[in-house]
Amino acid sequence: MPSFSFRVLHTDGAARRGEMRTAHGVVQTPAFMPVGTRGAVRGMTSRDLREVGAEIILGNTYHLWLRPGDGPIARLGGLHRFMGWDGPILTDSGGFQAFSLGEKRVITEAGIRFRSHLDGSEHLLTPEGATDIQAQLGPDIAMVLDECLAQPAPAAAVRDSTERSARWARRCRGRFLELRDLGAGELRLDSEAAESRTPPLDLARGGPEPVEGPNPESRPRVTNPGQAQFGIIQGGTVPELRTLSVERTLAIGFEAYAIGGLSVGEPADTMYSVVAHTVPQLPADRPRYLMGVGTPLDIVEAVSRGIDLFDCVMPTRNARNGQLFTSEGRLTIKNAKYSVDGGPLDPACGCYTCRTHSRAYLRHLFVSGEIGAAVLNTIHNLRFYLDTMARVRQAIVFGTLETLRQSLQAIFSRPLSDS
Amino acid sequence: MPSFSFRVLHTDGAARRGEMRTAHGVVQTPAFMPVGTRGAVRGMTSRDLREVGAEIILGNTYHLWLRPGDGPIARLGGLHRFMGWDGPILTDSGGFQAFSLGEKRVITEAGIRFRSHLDGSEHLLTPEGATDIQAQLGPDIAMVLDECLAQPAPAAAVRDSTERSARWARRCRGRFLELRDLGAGELRLDSEAAESRTPPLDLARGGPEPVEGPNPESRPRVTNPGQAQFGIIQGGTVPELRTLSVERTLAIGFEAYAIGGLSVGEPADTMYSVVAHTVPQLPADRPRYLMGVGTPLDIVEAVSRGIDLFDCVMPTRNARNGQLFTSEGRLTIKNAKYSVDGGPLDPACGCYTCRTHSRAYLRHLFVSGEIGAAVLNTIHNLRFYLDTMARVRQAIVFGTLETLRQSLQAIFSRPLSDS
Repeated sequence: MPSFSFRVLHTDGAARRGEMRTAHGVVQTPAFMPVGTRGAVRGMTSRDLREVGAEIILGNTYHLWLRPGDGPIARLGGLHRFMGWDGPILTDSGGFQAFSLGEKRVITEAGIRFRSHLDGSEHLLTPEGATDIQAQLGPDIAMVLDECLAQPAPAAAVRDSTERSARWARRCRGRFLELRDLGAGELRLDSEAAESRTPPLDLARGGPEPVEGPNPESRPRVTNPGQAQFGIIQGGTVPELRTLSVERTLAIGFEAYAIGGLSVGEPADTMYSVVAHTVPQLPADRPRYLMGVGTPLDIVEAVSRGIDLFDCVMPTRNARNGQLFTSEGRLTIKNAKYSVDGGPLDPACGCYTCRTHSRAYLRHLFVSGEIGAAVLNTIHNLRFYLDTMARVRQAIVFGTLETLRQSLQAIFSRPLSDS
Repeated sequence: MPSFSFRVLHTDGAARRGEMRTAHGVVQTPAFMPVGTRGAVRGMTSRDLREVGAEIILGNTYHLWLRPGDGPIARLGGLHRFMGWDGPILTDSGGFQAFSLGEKRVITEAGIRFRSHLDGSEHLLTPEGATDIQAQLGPDIAMVLDECLAQPAPAAAVRDSTERSARWARRCRGRFLELRDLGAGELRLDSEAAESRTPPLDLARGGPEPVEGPNPESRPRVTNPGQAQFGIIQGGTVPELRTLSVERTLAIGFEAYAIGGLSVGEPADTMYSVVAHTVPQLPADRPRYLMGVGTPLDIVEAVSRGIDLFDCVMPTRNARNGQLFTSEGRLTIKNAKYSVDGGPLDPACGCYTCRTHSRAYLRHLFVSGEIGAAVLNTIHNLRFYLDTMARVRQAIVFGTLETLRQSLQAIFSRPLSDS
């Protein structure tokens, strides 16, 4: 695995300061990945992302598969080139979004059958298909297709789901290794094969036809031969099932492991407990990724339990809603008190927004519905998150993570479980 | 007038290559002013504007007066500081927007009485008020309040309107000079006076109360003592009335003169004729501004008739609608043929968008409704316009404007008058 490696540089308790190498560069960990759902972090250019300090970003397979399609993206050289982002990219498997369609999806052993939120067309996302699509998209890190069970759920349902996720993980890995072996001899395949993976959405807008998922027999175009694949630990909030999932997933063997199925509405301390239970069972020489987390406090709590990678829509989505993170706590920019506030959003922040504009101006743009509000607020919130990660990494080196955790807790504490 | 000056460096026929000095820097002319309606050029940061080559931008008095209010902007140091743009700014008088409200406005000798498009509250925009508001906003160039008559109109109505615009121009200049004299002794006034000019929109959202326009007796806060004021030539499409308006307006005396009331639906050759008729009557040592114009071809046609300054929403509005200007003509980015087009929007363009992204990606962002589509398309369209202005300036120096005009005509010709 020359393209992917990880090493721990420092530790502070369970927390690790590390370096993750990917086919498109090095990521300093713990790291936060801004979410670029549809091939773009909303309102941010690639250079904006670089400037706020992003080292790796996340793309959503579900959205990119449906539009513009992994086929066109592969033909255009893969997601990096398509997005104009030459740094590391991780994509999810598409499972979480398909699962989130609720009524519109059915899960079987084969995979997830769903109707597109765009045009109602029917699709089947299989473990092999999710692997093929990601082979065509070409992120540096691909995720296995897993089942995200709604919580709370009966223990038996969680067990069934966890076992299914493990079987899907095995199929994903099988397909991934098959493509890697093929790729060693023949990296570029004909564009027809690349096209076959794509639902013909733009071509057949008129009437949604049932479209089968990628055919495991046809060969995808592998646009990033250095791609790594991460397994995902499921098991809900049942410690025994988390342990079962760890055993099953480690037995398959992946470049690294993620913890999924959290940050889906459970209390914060439940999430922290599951992380604390699971992390020690994962190999110490691989990065650990806590999917979909979270608030600044969630992140430092998880780091202190041994997590290295995070992603969350919170900084970007909140920015568009005028909810801003600052060194003094959260701030709602539309509040009338900011209408003549000539000070910066966050006096402690060095982002373009804080260097250039007042709260009064940002409030004006927000209440006026200006595009610039989303742009400037997103620049700030991402910078706040990425600066927080830099502080986390520094605190690990200096052995002061607990101090940082306490200060973030004072600013961003959220209610814990009632129990 | 130390803060404002103009000199012609080169000529090519009637076209002039000049330099306009303002209180916030020099503008190379002929120049195009991107439109920042509500204190922001939509989707562009100030550094984006600098990077695409903008030297001067335009703000809309009507919108800024109603929200956030000229009072708050004055208290925050004026529009430059409020927007985070330290280059030259020109504001219109608010008259055109108020006039465009149609049913919601009544024009009397006093001014324009209208109901706000935001909350229905009633306001009166007087010549003195428009001058005071612009004194508080603090652009480098303020415009007089004029009446923009709908075309076509009976000659008698055009004459009445032209005479009224001239009377309003005199009142605007009177107030402007009064403020300048006051300003020489006392530039900063108390914030209460500054506040009085502002409709209490945010404070009285519940029930719109009739709000009088600025009181000519109270003193505005002059945030830019180096402000210049331009008069506006009206007169519709009647040559005699244009001449009358020139005489009336020159008799008052302004730092420079604009041609208004064009680009409101009349045929292109009618507009060119009015410009050709009017320009020779304007002083050669002052910049000439053709308001609200236009297409790239309109601009070069007007430059060749002696115009120095332009503004238009076309590059920015069209960008948001996916209509792009390129060296090969107009391009509609949502066209299906661009879905797998890996080439740049415009191979001849050096803007960030063209350097970084493919047509396929820009199409994807546009059809996905991503904010980034507006941002990247606006960067390109403004760069195209500003590059065109640079080519126009260079052509004047080299005496090749006619060649450039012909090449733009071949690319961007539009139907001329039927007659």
